[in-house]
Amino acid sequence: MDLAGVAEHLAQLGIDVLTDDLEPYGRDETMNLFAAPGLVVRPRSTAEVVEVLRVADEESIPVTPRGGGTGKAGGCIPVAGGIVLGLEKMARIKEIDAANRFAVVEPGVVLWTFHEECAKRGLLYPIDMSSGGTCELGGNLACDAGGERAVKYGTTRAQVTGCEAVLMGGRVVRTGGKLAKNAAGYALHHLLVGSEGTLGVITEATLRLQPMPTQRRTLLAAFGSLDRAARAALEVEKAGFTLSAIELVERAGAALAEEMLKESLPHPKAAALLLVEIEGFKEAAADAELEAVGEALLEAGADEVDLAPREKVWRVRHAVAEAIKRLPAYSAVDAVVPRSLMPELVRRAHAAASRHGVEVVCFGHAGDGNIHVDFVKRRADDPSWDTGIAPAIRDVLAATVELGGSITAEHGVGLLRRDDLALQYDDGTIAAMKALKAAWDPKGLLNPGKIWA
Amino acid sequence: MDLAGVAEHLAQLGIDVLTDDLEPYGRDETMNLFAAPGLVVRPRSTAEVVEVLRVADEESIPVTPRGGGTGKAGGCIPVAGGIVLGLEKMARIKEIDAANRFAVVEPGVVLWTFHEECAKRGLLYPIDMSSGGTCELGGNLACDAGGERAVKYGTTRAQVTGCEAVLMGGRVVRTGGKLAKNAAGYALHHLLVGSEGTLGVITEATLRLQPMPTQRRTLLAAFGSLDRAARAALEVEKAGFTLSAIELVERAGAALAEEMLKESLPHPKAAALLLVEIEGFKEAAADAELEAVGEALLEAGADEVDLAPREKVWRVRHAVAEAIKRLPAYSAVDAVVPRSLMPELVRRAHAAASRHGVEVVCFGHAGDGNIHVDFVKRRADDPSWDTGIAPAIRDVLAATVELGGSITAEHGVGLLRRDDLALQYDDGTIAAMKALKAAWDPKGLLNPGKIWA
Repeated sequence: MDLAGVAEHLAQLGIDVLTDDLEPYGRDETMNLFAAPGLVVRPRSTAEVVEVLRVADEESIPVTPRGGGTGKAGGCIPVAGGIVLGLEKMARIKEIDAANRFAVVEPGVVLWTFHEECAKRGLLYPIDMSSGGTCELGGNLACDAGGERAVKYGTTRAQVTGCEAVLMGGRVVRTGGKLAKNAAGYALHHLLVGSEGTLGVITEATLRLQPMPTQRRTLLAAFGSLDRAARAALEVEKAGFTLSAIELVERAGAALAEEMLKESLPHPKAAALLLVEIEGFKEAAADAELEAVGEALLEAGADEVDLAPREKVWRVRHAVAEAIKRLPAYSAVDAVVPRSLMPELVRRAHAAASRHGVEVVCFGHAGDGNIHVDFVKRRADDPSWDTGIAPAIRDVLAATVELGGSITAEHGVGLLRRDDLALQYDDGTIAAMKALKAAWDPKGLLNPGKIWA
Repeated sequence: MDLAGVAEHLAQLGIDVLTDDLEPYGRDETMNLFAAPGLVVRPRSTAEVVEVLRVADEESIPVTPRGGGTGKAGGCIPVAGGIVLGLEKMARIKEIDAANRFAVVEPGVVLWTFHEECAKRGLLYPIDMSSGGTCELGGNLACDAGGERAVKYGTTRAQVTGCEAVLMGGRVVRTGGKLAKNAAGYALHHLLVGSEGTLGVITEATLRLQPMPTQRRTLLAAFGSLDRAARAALEVEKAGFTLSAIELVERAGAALAEEMLKESLPHPKAAALLLVEIEGFKEAAADAELEAVGEALLEAGADEVDLAPREKVWRVRHAVAEAIKRLPAYSAVDAVVPRSLMPELVRRAHAAASRHGVEVVCFGHAGDGNIHVDFVKRRADDPSWDTGIAPAIRDVLAATVELGGSITAEHGVGLLRRDDLALQYDDGTIAAMKALKAAWDPKGLLNPGKIWA
């Protein structure tokens, strides 16, 4: 059967098949990446996913799973053509079990929709990020999304206690459950998390929930230098507070977001801002902690610290990535290093930018040592971009690895970093990963071309 | 080369090889399990592990890795003979990085030794359990050990951010690092955790540490019925406190421990005890929380709640398993269910025991829904044991799975539960696990006979 035959076969079974206007399924949020899908299939059930992966395997047709398309590493670009498997119609929240604080979800649930449903029941799903309005839980799982609250709650992996997934060929696996502990057999859900859709298609996940904090306080601290802000992020974390976010934004990044949103944060002249959030269940305790954290920030070198309007501050913070995306060009490293080395990474990123004549904006999750090093081209006719961007990226990646870090903290390897993975892992390790891939997908049909070439 | 030839070859390379008095390497703490090792090899470095796994693969000799030998599922019994790989000489704490709160350790480090070294630096490695004085970190990783503080900090998996491991044949893999986030490639350390030494031998692990709480308070609550204690454990957890332990001990279990230790806890007539622990950094806050938790326990049906002498209470709690081990016979199910169903599991365990004429003692980690259902034979000449134990165990396993639970929470499948894994996972899932095993160990030489037959 060729691709048209497969389309007909799947349509006859009542599966939703798109053959026209496929272009939106050929890109994500990575600049300049596009590949045309041959076919888009949007299953509504695990059984339909099984049939797609069965027939695709039989006919040797590549399949590229896709969530909300908000990836920044090209992980869902169908570089080998074939079928794009859009999971957006599998978007049921099957269960929110308040007694046990677990949810059972399908992969197509949009993150902030899930947040809302949990919040209605007084529960928090702690993973949050700028793309929350469109990204889907399946994509979060595939990339082990972290975001801003990972500093307190861990990444997506820390929330997952079980899943159902379909492997290439149509085999269904199910491990885990609504369980705090489980030592029965291999934790397949933990292998699938972060595997970027190359090992299987997650069709259901069991996720831990948390009690919804009744108190939230957001502090905005202004610093005269980016380096001082980076060091202060460490200091306040070391002081023993359990903070639910410690975000660093270089002023230039905030300015781009402010311009896009037509609203502004205080401290326009600061070199960098730290956004620190406190959660709790008791007003007095939260206030006391706020006071103490504020003092710690001032001691750590903040010029000013204010209680900030929470929604506005987060709106600006979340808009930074979107504002950068609207520039003529941009290219980012999603770097993470051991926390104490984060200020050094920020310094080296700026040194690389000036060495190669490009502009850089650093922002991200300072409490985790995870900094988005975004190189930006402000003017379309800037000639230094074309010569400078590749060596600047290369230098930041090399610095990240040299500092004991990872070339991607939460975006995944995808297409963008597949040639860089060897900077971080040796041949034997990569060969061992490929052996697992071959065990489940011997023809290499599931999300081909990702993680490695 | 036969086994004697391999022994000679390894000895010539300076690797520690034992050929006599191997009997202690043929058992763990599971009753009645023993298999004679052909050879015991105790490497001192990753390079030595590589050579053992290289030559063993070449000569098709089984290798059974072994930590402290405290397992309760026979995971380190060398059922296929061959080489027992004792990791006890790889016992270096390579680094305790206080700035980043990470440690890098070898697998043979004894858990409580590691605790002490961390504590000297004001740091906590939160995993703790009764066998802490002899169990080794490598074994903890292999079984994803949980223990009593998992209710707050998660199991061993939640502490691991990277590892080095040697695969059968001698390939070395290294993933992760001192990183809060990492989305580069497959998280091999998360596949290895809980794989019970069947996929690779962990030779180094990177572990998260926590600030050492300066305040600790232990409450002992006495209940008139086991069921009420089980339900109270849920209530106090639901009330929104972050407790670092919620342990349930049936009075009969505590009595066995008291008898062995020659010391006693209060409330000799209670049917069950709950041990609840609070941690914090501020005296006043810890005291206030203590008060509130105590009130919550009374409201939930406790007859009495006392501030308890911490060391003594934990000594008794930790001795329960040891005391049971000294009885003429015992057999346990390491069951875990969704928290809210834990009281139901405890009821069903007792019903199964009376149905089949055997005695059961329930104790364990109530906050996690993880109950050790230990069937005990007090008198060597009790005839009902032989007929009753197998059906009683079978009923508890079936109830566990029916309640959405797992047949092992933290002990692992090993030999003991390998025929029961199919109760929990379907054929397709187990086949997918076996395919991963075959990818890395095609001859099936590494810890053969474990997890499945």
